[in-house]
Parts: sequence; structure tokens; C-alpha cells
Amino acid sequence: MNDKNNHSLFTTKYGTMAHHEQFHSFSEREDTVPIGSLNILSAKYESLDYEIVENYVYRDEERKKGYQFVVKKNVVRWAIFFWIGVITAVIGVIIDLSIEIIADLKFGNVKEYIDTCNKKNCLWQPYILLLVYNIVPVLIGSILVTYIEPVALGSGIPQVKCYLNGIKIPRLVRVKTLFIKVIGVITTVVGGMCGGKEGPMIHAGAVVAAGISQGKSTTFNKDCGVLKYFREDHEKRDFVSGGAAAGVAAAFGSPVGGVLFSLEEGASFWNQALTWRIFFASMISTFTLNSVLSAYHGHPGELTYWGLLNFGKFNNFALSYEMIELPIFLAMGVTGGLLGALFCHLNYKLTIFRMRHLVSCWKKVLEAVLVCSITATVGFLLMLWENDCKPLGLDPTKHPVQLNCNDGEYNSMASLWLQVPEASVRSFFHDPAESLKVATLAYFAVSFYFLTIWTYGLSVSAGIFIPCLATGAAWGRLIGIGVQCIFPNVDVGKYALIGAASQLGGVVRMTISLTIILIEATGDITFGLPLMICLLTAKWIGDYFTESIYDIHIQLSGIPLMAWDPPPLSSNIFATEVMAHPVAVFKSKETVGKIVDTLKKYTYNGFPVVDDIFSVDSEIGDNKSNGRLRGLILRSQLIVLLQNKVFNEVPSAWDYVSLTTFRQDYPRYSDIDGIEILDSERNYTVDLLRFMNPSPYVVQHMASLPRIFRLFRAMGLRHIVVVNDSNEVVGIVTRKDLTRYKVWRHRGTIGVVELKVSAKL
Amino acid sequence: MNDKNNHSLFTTKYGTMAHHEQFHSFSEREDTVPIGSLNILSAKYESLDYEIVENYVYRDEERKKGYQFVVKKNVVRWAIFFWIGVITAVIGVIIDLSIEIIADLKFGNVKEYIDTCNKKNCLWQPYILLLVYNIVPVLIGSILVTYIEPVALGSGIPQVKCYLNGIKIPRLVRVKTLFIKVIGVITTVVGGMCGGKEGPMIHAGAVVAAGISQGKSTTFNKDCGVLKYFREDHEKRDFVSGGAAAGVAAAFGSPVGGVLFSLEEGASFWNQALTWRIFFASMISTFTLNSVLSAYHGHPGELTYWGLLNFGKFNNFALSYEMIELPIFLAMGVTGGLLGALFCHLNYKLTIFRMRHLVSCWKKVLEAVLVCSITATVGFLLMLWENDCKPLGLDPTKHPVQLNCNDGEYNSMASLWLQVPEASVRSFFHDPAESLKVATLAYFAVSFYFLTIWTYGLSVSAGIFIPCLATGAAWGRLIGIGVQCIFPNVDVGKYALIGAASQLGGVVRMTISLTIILIEATGDITFGLPLMICLLTAKWIGDYFTESIYDIHIQLSGIPLMAWDPPPLSSNIFATEVMAHPVAVFKSKETVGKIVDTLKKYTYNGFPVVDDIFSVDSEIGDNKSNGRLRGLILRSQLIVLLQNKVFNEVPSAWDYVSLTTFRQDYPRYSDIDGIEILDSERNYTVDLLRFMNPSPYVVQHMASLPRIFRLFRAMGLRHIVVVNDSNEVVGIVTRKDLTRYKVWRHRGTIGVVELKVSAKL
Repeated sequence: MNDKNNHSLFTTKYGTMAHHEQFHSFSEREDTVPIGSLNILSAKYESLDYEIVENYVYRDEERKKGYQFVVKKNVVRWAIFFWIGVITAVIGVIIDLSIEIIADLKFGNVKEYIDTCNKKNCLWQPYILLLVYNIVPVLIGSILVTYIEPVALGSGIPQVKCYLNGIKIPRLVRVKTLFIKVIGVITTVVGGMCGGKEGPMIHAGAVVAAGISQGKSTTFNKDCGVLKYFREDHEKRDFVSGGAAAGVAAAFGSPVGGVLFSLEEGASFWNQALTWRIFFASMISTFTLNSVLSAYHGHPGELTYWGLLNFGKFNNFALSYEMIELPIFLAMGVTGGLLGALFCHLNYKLTIFRMRHLVSCWKKVLEAVLVCSITATVGFLLMLWENDCKPLGLDPTKHPVQLNCNDGEYNSMASLWLQVPEASVRSFFHDPAESLKVATLAYFAVSFYFLTIWTYGLSVSAGIFIPCLATGAAWGRLIGIGVQCIFPNVDVGKYALIGAASQLGGVVRMTISLTIILIEATGDITFGLPLMICLLTAKWIGDYFTESIYDIHIQLSGIPLMAWDPPPLSSNIFATEVMAHPVAVFKSKETVGKIVDTLKKYTYNGFPVVDDIFSVDSEIGDNKSNGRLRGLILRSQLIVLLQNKVFNEVPSAWDYVSLTTFRQDYPRYSDIDGIEILDSERNYTVDLLRFMNPSPYVVQHMASLPRIFRLFRAMGLRHIVVVNDSNEVVGIVTRKDLTRYKVWRHRGTIGVVELKVSAKL
Repeated sequence: MNDKNNHSLFTTKYGTMAHHEQFHSFSEREDTVPIGSLNILSAKYESLDYEIVENYVYRDEERKKGYQFVVKKNVVRWAIFFWIGVITAVIGVIIDLSIEIIADLKFGNVKEYIDTCNKKNCLWQPYILLLVYNIVPVLIGSILVTYIEPVALGSGIPQVKCYLNGIKIPRLVRVKTLFIKVIGVITTVVGGMCGGKEGPMIHAGAVVAAGISQGKSTTFNKDCGVLKYFREDHEKRDFVSGGAAAGVAAAFGSPVGGVLFSLEEGASFWNQALTWRIFFASMISTFTLNSVLSAYHGHPGELTYWGLLNFGKFNNFALSYEMIELPIFLAMGVTGGLLGALFCHLNYKLTIFRMRHLVSCWKKVLEAVLVCSITATVGFLLMLWENDCKPLGLDPTKHPVQLNCNDGEYNSMASLWLQVPEASVRSFFHDPAESLKVATLAYFAVSFYFLTIWTYGLSVSAGIFIPCLATGAAWGRLIGIGVQCIFPNVDVGKYALIGAASQLGGVVRMTISLTIILIEATGDITFGLPLMICLLTAKWIGDYFTESIYDIHIQLSGIPLMAWDPPPLSSNIFATEVMAHPVAVFKSKETVGKIVDTLKKYTYNGFPVVDDIFSVDSEIGDNKSNGRLRGLILRSQLIVLLQNKVFNEVPSAWDYVSLTTFRQDYPRYSDIDGIEILDSERNYTVDLLRFMNPSPYVVQHMASLPRIFRLFRAMGLRHIVVVNDSNEVVGIVTRKDLTRYKVWRHRGTIGVVELKVSAKL
């Protein structure tokens, strides 16, 4: 291709977005990518093709189908969203009940041993028992995650966020990933680690949606065929939004929060009909989970099991507040922001250490087991150390342990550690004021804080919501006890709630949907304003120092996540500076040989189709034109054309080529190297006009960065063609070209930094 | 201009979107516009300029300001949103308390007279008293609305919806309109008409936002100057979204519903930072309203006055439901949909009658007074007619009337009519089962239903929410009583709530935000699913027969509202068929005379700036090219340039021209006829390159309608330039070109109809 510009076009191993050789001289010194840099983009992530290619075959299909088909497709869509809601909820129930049953068994058993050994002085026995109970499941979970499916690691929220943002995360929405994730999260929580089951639910919902909507599974090697009209990135991403929302709804009992989570992370633009369906899936998911859990717990009619995370019922008095308390909430927000920033920084340093020294799989598993043992040990030591004995009457715990206490008393520190973290959060919110003393809370908060830092990023499946809430609830309750010295009437549970929100806000900074999730989980709109105040404060304070924990991990992976807004004050950066060029192009009637060679040579995913017409100013400046734009063709389309031998010289191939041909292989197309082309076929031609996108989005060469950014983001694009005054192709803009202008807003200032793109990350 | 195409370019009195002479031959037979047609677009509505013009002066300002300025502007934005919340809430409080105090006085007085006259047989006295109490305020309100500010008519929701959709509704957000609206709504509700105060609150919020953010008022002729950087359509619309949300939050105590209302109606694309601020304003608004109302009613700490519309507190038992009840809810949704469709149809016929026969102002006022008297008469007759006597112990009403009842009893029909409609809604929701008998409910439902149909569209300010809720609650409670015969344990209030939601859903079909508003107003997420089911059903059934009441009125006014999605199966409609052409264009260096003449001749609001370069194919087909595209300049910019004499030959004018010059006159620019240009100046030239938008959004001539639609909608555009293969201007697409493809979905089928554009409507 492009014989006249044979100067080094930079080729990467992976693809699409590497049109950058002009700006980034990293190709020569690739090996210098510093580990742990936040200012590198990885070249390996590709974008989803959200845009609908309205070519001849598309119009053909549309013409044949008629309005009837539109209505039918819509009905099927609603049905799919219904099932997304139901199945996501069922997975939530499976996770919840498995954890409950196993954890009950474990804690009950440990309690018995402790009670027995406390008298016999053989406390090493329950300790060993606890260790075994924790290490075995964590070992299983960690091995599965590390060796079989590393994408199931962690909470899954950042990955789903990236997917909704329009980035292809390999293997994220496969059924296999879901299995590993479900087992992983059960083992982690049962293993007593500082992890939650809420984040993974969101990931689970996303997989369910992708699976159901496509009607086929690579893992099972099955293909139902009914739903083939939904086999395109556009439709799939819409379903995944619904799945993520259903996941949030099931995890937190928060259908509206679910909708807003999906909108916030995924919405390019507001799609009314889609939003309705997302809302519907969320509602169904909440309802199903609630019905099943209520029935299981023996109250079939009552519907009181809202979501996996259950804050319990606050009474109206507990959540009323006075104006005078708002400054205290504000101060707690600041504290949460500071603690969150420290959290993110320490975890960032730890992650760098991991990237440097814990590369091999067995080391990762070992670390998981180590952290698991230490968590158990810390808990056990604290139980022994702290003598926070309370009379048994106050007891809201399931497994009261008498450890170090007199008869008729129980050790409240032990009861905090001998329950799943959700239950601890509820204890902090609702236990009577005198049931937990200051030292217990302080020890718990400090140890949980650091253990959570260490746990996040381990090679296990677990979310960060619950441990953050537990830490925050602990120190929030501490502050509540302090406030009680001045105003004896306040409820400490309310302060625990504010503390939990502040801590979570400081770590994840999750904005609008988080606020609504917490409001819905609390079940009281009255308390929305205080929650919002402390979440906003925590976010602002945290942002002053670091990025959010999710963003740090996304940046460490070099994922090109699009920001909400274009960088400020960047309207003097023009398309010519942003774009990649020269561009690999095809003529509207191109030879098979040329296509094969180009696809082998470059890894780009979109190629402008041009006419060989050049205007007088086509050579002006650096930006040589590649001919006049006719359209844009995707790599995947070319692969399908080659594979099916849709050549002008093979008339029979034309009979059956339709959109179905293109859907067949979605989403995993063959590699160009796997396609056999006979030598005799190399001189055959392909008519690209029939298949290309005849009106791709273009910008003029003097369009500004904000303008390109907004167009790209609002329309969910993968490629924007840059043309000169005569509509001749001079460059192409892809996700990486835009995401490399990163805005930083730290310590009160703001600025733009240009990232590097690396193929090595 | 454009000497080569002097065939009749169609000119309208108003402007912008009338590039249609090619497709619509209506200009010759304008007078044939049938009254009451739903398939006509009015030419008089213009779009907002949501797009930022990134010209030289803009970049100049940006360069001078720096990041500091970005941060400062952001802080000011937050402050403005804070005040939007507070002031909107204060207006809500004023409306609420005024109505409460005056209505109390009125009902108390009437009750006294009835009680006295019941014995003395002089019931004509309280009747006359009631008439006077009703007619006087309605007369005042109606005269204000009819003669002084007709845009204050009705609920304001459809108008705000249009504004957020991007349409300039003249005088909608002026302070004068707010005053009339506030007085109008107070008088209407006090006058006992079937109208609510909630819709107007949303309008009030929008005005407050527009007023505060601009820092100047045309009504008061004041200009603060501080906030001049927000004086552009882009910023103003963002603030207005916040205001509308704050209005919803204040009206229904529903901050999340407010956010979703604004997003649903206004969001072109998701703007994270803006959404936060909208949410903040909503929260502040709810909080302020609640604090003030709670303090006024003597419970300063409790915060129990959620919004103007208060559903009251449902107990947990009342809202629990069984699976078996879902079909009943579904059936009620169907009923609501049918009643809603009938409602819309009757109101539509009535509106056509009004458009034909009630054109003069005095007739409108007379009709309002007539409806007001009839409402009072119907109420009074029903009180006399129905002997629904209940013992005084059950009494949840403020003004129990003994009319026709024994001592120690009260007339429950009278108590329904002698209170504001909100209180009736609460009665239906919460009154004990035996307090209202079947006949009372039936009479009330029927009379309220028809009175509401008659009231909506009268020349008074009033919303439709409350009367719909009251009607629906009445028949819902009826159904509840029926259900009680089978399941004696159910709560009739729950059925009243479902009935209210179904009726409202059938009439306004307001989708996601409505669901969330009702959930928040109910204060119980458990009940979200039934509400959603009946709202969705009502919407679907209603849509089967008619458009929503708002949409009918919008269509009757011919307002070019953009739909959510492009018409289905329209990708074989191309830009060349959609666009208007030929186009009035300017050269990049244009003479003053030419500019003045063109502006006088045409009413367009955007003019492509072109170079006189034509390619070989510029004359191909019908679509003659107008030269190669350089940029786009707005009428308002040209007016400012002419007014300030920014001519190349007047160097002094160049010294001070900056963005401030353009902001000075926003939003009301002079008319071209008002600008004096000396004959000697006609040969001067203007350098348009400096001021035009150098990279307007363009589409190729073969772009499809869905593609253009999505671009237009997602980016909130006003003009899209259509170019040929050589980037030469061949046409322009504006809002009307896109909105005239209207989708209808009635009776199970779907189709697209092409509307006509009329300058007469």
C-alpha cells in the first residue's frame, strides 16, 4: 500500500490505535517503559465498534425486513432484559447463600473450639482451625483466578467501566470468566479476607447480559442462532449496560443506582428506550433477589432482603439530623478523603512492587495465602488482646464467644471478627451505643484499613466496597462516640454511616451513582443531603492528592479510558496535531493481493477508502493527502470478505453475501494469517464500495481537540477521518490519539500532560 | 447574494429553519393550514445555539485566561447551582403557604356558612359565597395570563421540555413570566379548579436558573455583569436543566427524579460534572423546602415536609404485595392507559374547538370563569346529592361539614370538595377503608375526570399532575374496595396509589423520571416494581391510541421537538433529500452591503462561509455547489459585527472586539433593520474568517437520515452543513429538516410521516 510513503509506519503486535509514530519516538526505546508509570497508554487495547455501518448490505436487510421486524426485535429485546434481571439475581442468590452457609459452618465450628479451649488453654487449636478454614478456600480461589482466568481478578468494576467506555477487554464477558468469578468471590469472602461480594456482582451481571443476548457461548461452543441480529458491538454493549445495572441492583438493592451506574459509565448519549429497559432489568433483578432470599429465610411475602449488601433498617430517629451537625459531616468527609488518598497511594506503591517482583503465578498465589493467614492472625490476636466484654443480653451477634470474659458475657471484638464483613458493617450501624467500646473500634478500623490496602490487587476475586464501608463505619462510630460526649442524644449509627460513606467516597470517588446507591441502601431520602455532602467532600479532597483506586489501576494497565470532558483550554490543539498519519488506505476497487499485504503489514482496524483524485493543495505542508475520501472499511469486514471470497471475479459468492455473513464470526474474527488466498486470486478485485461505511464521521484538519473529543465520545466512535479542505484524507484519529491528552487536577492546580503509547505494557 | 440562484428562496417572518421551498409547496397555499392538524411544523420556533463557536476571538480569550480561570468559573458555577436550589425552594414555599392560608380561610368560611344554612335552609348563600371565592381569584389569574403573559399558561412542563430539547420558546424564562406564573398558579388552585401547583414549579425553577445565571434581567432592566461569561445558550441551557430539576425536587420532594427529569428531557449527552451540579441543586432545593416548611409547621428538626406534593406516610404493611396482585396492577395499568387515551383525545378535540372559536382574549377569560363556576357548582351539587355520612370520629379532614347528616356525623363528599386536590389524594391513599363509600368515589372520579379534561388548556396557570392523581386515586380506591371483597386483608390505599399512577401514566406517559418521582414520593423502593409495571402498561396502552397530552399540545403548536431516536428503517433517506438548498453563503471576505442585503432578504440564522473554488463535479445533478466550505457564521454574530462596525477599513474597531462584544447583547440581538449602515460603508469589507466557526459539523451528501439525526441530537446542533465529495457546500440541515420525519406508532403498527412546515401557525 501507499507506495509513496514507505517511511517507517510503526507496527505493533496488537493493533488499532497505533498511528503515532510521528509524535512518539518510543518505538526506538520501547524497553524503557518504567514500571508503575501512570502516564503510559498500552497499545494492546482496542475499541468496540459502536457505530452502525450503513452500507449497501445493511440497507438491503433493512429494506427486506420492514416495520414488523422492528417491532419484533424490540419485543425480543425486552424479553432479554427480563432474563438478564432474573439470572443476575439468581447468581446473586447463589453467591449469597453459599457464603452464608459455609461461613456459618466455619464460624460456628471455630466458636465451639474457642469456647472449649478457652477453659482448657489450648487456644492454638481454634487458631489452626481458623487458618485452615481460611487458607483452603483462598488457595482454591487464587489458583483458579491466577492460572485459569486472570481477568476475574479483583472487583471487576474497573473492567466493566472500561467496557462500557467502549474498550474491548479480552475475555471479560465470557461464561468461563463468570464461573471463576463466582467461585473466586465465594472463596475469598469465606476465606475471611477483606473483600466484598458486591463489585463482582456487577461483573457477573455484565457477563450474563453478554451471554444471553448473543445466544451463543464460546466456552460451551454452542450457538442458538435465534438472536443473531444482536451480534454486533452496538447491541452487545447496550445489553451489557443492562447487565451491569442489574448487577448493581442485585448487589445493593438499588435499581435506580444501577441505572445511573450504567448511564454514568457507559452512556455516550441518552437513549430513552435503552434506559427504560435497563431500569426494567434492574427492577426485575432486585425483585427476584428479594423474593428468593425472603422465601429462603422464611418470610416469603415480606420482601425485606434488599440486595446482597443490606444496611439493615435505620429507624427514623436515627437518621434525623440538625443543621449544626453538617460541619461535623463535612469534617468526616475531609477525613475520608485524606484516608482514601493515603489508601490509594499505598496501594499504588504496593501494586508497583507487585508488578516488579511478583510476576510469576506461584508467587501471586503465595501472596494471597500469606495475606489470608495474616488476616486470620491479626483477627485472632486482637480477640485475645482486647477484653471488650459485654453482657450477653446486648448480643446482636450470631456466634457470641466467651473468650477472656466472665460467664454471661461475650467478647465483642471476637464477634466482629467472627462474622462476614457485611455483618460487621451492620453491627456498626445498628448495635446499641454501649456494645462496642472505643479501643475495639480503633483497633478494628486500623487493622481493617491496612489489610484492605494489602488485599486489593491480590490475585483473588473480591470487591473493595465492603471493607471500605467497614473501615469507615468503625472510625465513623468512633467519632459518633466522641460527638456523644457533647450532644448525648445523637445516634452513633448515623455517624458510622457517614464514616462509611466518606471512606468509600475517598477511595473509589464514585460520584452520582454511588450517592444514589447509598441513599437507596439506607432507604431514606432524608439522609441524602448529608451523604452527598460527605461523598462530594471526600471526592474533592481525595482528588486533590491522588486518582481514585480504580483509575490508578486502569492507568497502570495503560487502558485508554476516555474522560468525561475534553481537556480544558485545549481548543488551540488542532486535528493535524492530534491525528495519526500517514494513513493506510484502499481504493474503492482494490486487488486481493493488496488487501492481504496491507492487513499483514499493519495492524490498523479501520482503513479509509479513497479515490485517486488529488487537488492542487493536496501536497501543502506536512500533511500529504491520500486521495479523496469515499468511505471507511473495517479490518473485520475485510477479513470476512477474504474468507468468503467475495471477489468480483467469483460471481457465485455474491449471491449469498449479506449481513448474516458478517455476523457469523462475531465477535472473534480470524487472523489474517489464517486465511488462505491462492496465488491466482491475488489479482482478483474486491468492490469495497458495497461494504464500506459510505459516510464515516469526518473532521476538517483545523478542527480543535475539544470538538473532536466531543464528537468521538458522544457518538461512541472508533475512527474519525481527518480531511483537508478538498475532502482528501490526511489523517485518522482513534481513541489513543485523544486519550493521550490527560488532565491532571492535583493540589489545586490543573494541567494537561501528554501520555506515551507503548506496545509493551 | 447568490446571483446564480435567484429562484424563489422562501422567506418567513420569523426565521432560521425555513430552507424548505424545494420540498414544501405550502408557501403558495399557506392559508390552507388546517386548524388542529398534528402534522404541521411551525416555522417560527428557532433553535438554541448549543454549539461553542471556537473562532479566533474564543481562542484568544482562552489563551489569556489560563487554568486559574477554569477553576474559578467552576466554583462560580457551583455557587449558582446552590442559589438555584435555594431560591426555587423559596418560591415553592411561597406558593404552598399562600395557597394553604387562602384556601384555609375560604374553606373555613364556606363550612361555617353551610353549617349555619343547613339548618336555616339558605344553602344558596354558601353556594354564592363559594362561587365568589372561586371566580375572583380565577378571574385575576386568567386576566394576567391571557393579557400579560400567555406563555405562563398551563403547567409549563411541555414548554420547559422544548427548551431543554433545544428550542427557543420566546419569553419562557423571563422574570415577568415567573411572577405571572406564581400568581396564576396560586389563584387557580385557590379558585378550586382542577389544577395542581407541581408543573408550574418546574417552570419556576427554570426561570430562576436562567435569571440567576445570567446576572441580568430584561424585566428589571438590570445587569450585574459579574456572570457575563455564562451568557451563551450553551451555559444557560445547562443552568436551566438544573433549575428544572430543582423545581421537580421541590414539587415532589424527589431530588433523584429531578435529575432524571432534566437528563431525560434535556441531555444531549451525559455530562458528568453538570449532572453532579444538577443533583446538588435538587438536593439543596428539597432540603431548603423541607426545612422551611417543617419550621413553619412547628417541627423544625423533623424534616417531614417532602415537596409540595406530599403523599403522606404509607406504613410498611400497606405497600407490601403478593405475586397474585400483579395481574390486578397490570389490569389497572390497562385501565389507566385507556382512560388516559380517551382523556387525550377529548382534550385534543376541545383544544381544536378552542383554536377555532375562542381566539380573542376576553373569550378565553370568560371560558376560564365559566369552567371555574361549573367546577364549584358540580362540587356543591354532589355534596347536596350524596349522603355519605360518617361518624365524626373517623374524620381525617380539616373542615368537616354536617350537610344533610345527623349530629355527630359529617358529609364525606363535602370534605373531599372542601379541600385542595392534594389533600383529596392523601385522603384516598390513607383514609380508613370505611370512610369513603363506593358512590362517593365513583361520582368524584367521573366528575374530576371530565372537569380536568375541560380545565387543561384553559387560559390559566395550572398543572395536570394532581387532578390526574386525584382521579386515578378515586377509581383505584374503588377497585381496591372491589378487591377487598375477595381478599379482605388488602389495603385500599395501595390500590388508590396504583390507580393514581396508572391514570397519570396514561395521560402524561412521562416515563423514567415519572416512575422515580412516584417512587420517591411514596418513599418506598419496595413498591417500585408495581408502580413501574402499571406506568409502563398505561404508557403502552395509551400510546396505542394517542400521543401524550403534552405531545399533542406541542404538536398542535407545531413546535419542532426532536424525538429520542431517528425514525426506524430510514437509512435509505439521504442527506440530499433531507437538506435544504440552495443555501445563502458568504465569502470569507465579504462586503458590508452584501451582508446587509442578505440578512434583510433571508431570515436564516446560519450562513456557510465559502471560497469561490469549484471542482469539476460541482454542477453534477440538482445539487449545485456553492463553493468550498470554510466555516459557518451565525446571524447574531453578523449583527454584532455590523453594529460595532468591525470593518477592515475601520482599524479602531479591531482594538476592542472580543468575546465580550458578542456577549453584550445576548440573548436579544438587534434586528437587521435597526442597524444603520452609511452608504459609504457598504463597500467596506468584513473579515469573516476571524469570527466564523472554522470547523462546523458537516456530513457528506450520501449520509443517511439516522446518521444525521444522531449527530444533530447528540451534539445539540443548530446547523449541519452538507458537502459534496469535494467539500463544497450543497445544502444545510436544520432542526425542521429532521423533525419533519415523524414516527407514529398507533394500533400496533409503526410508520413515518413527513410533516409540513408552515409560517402561519
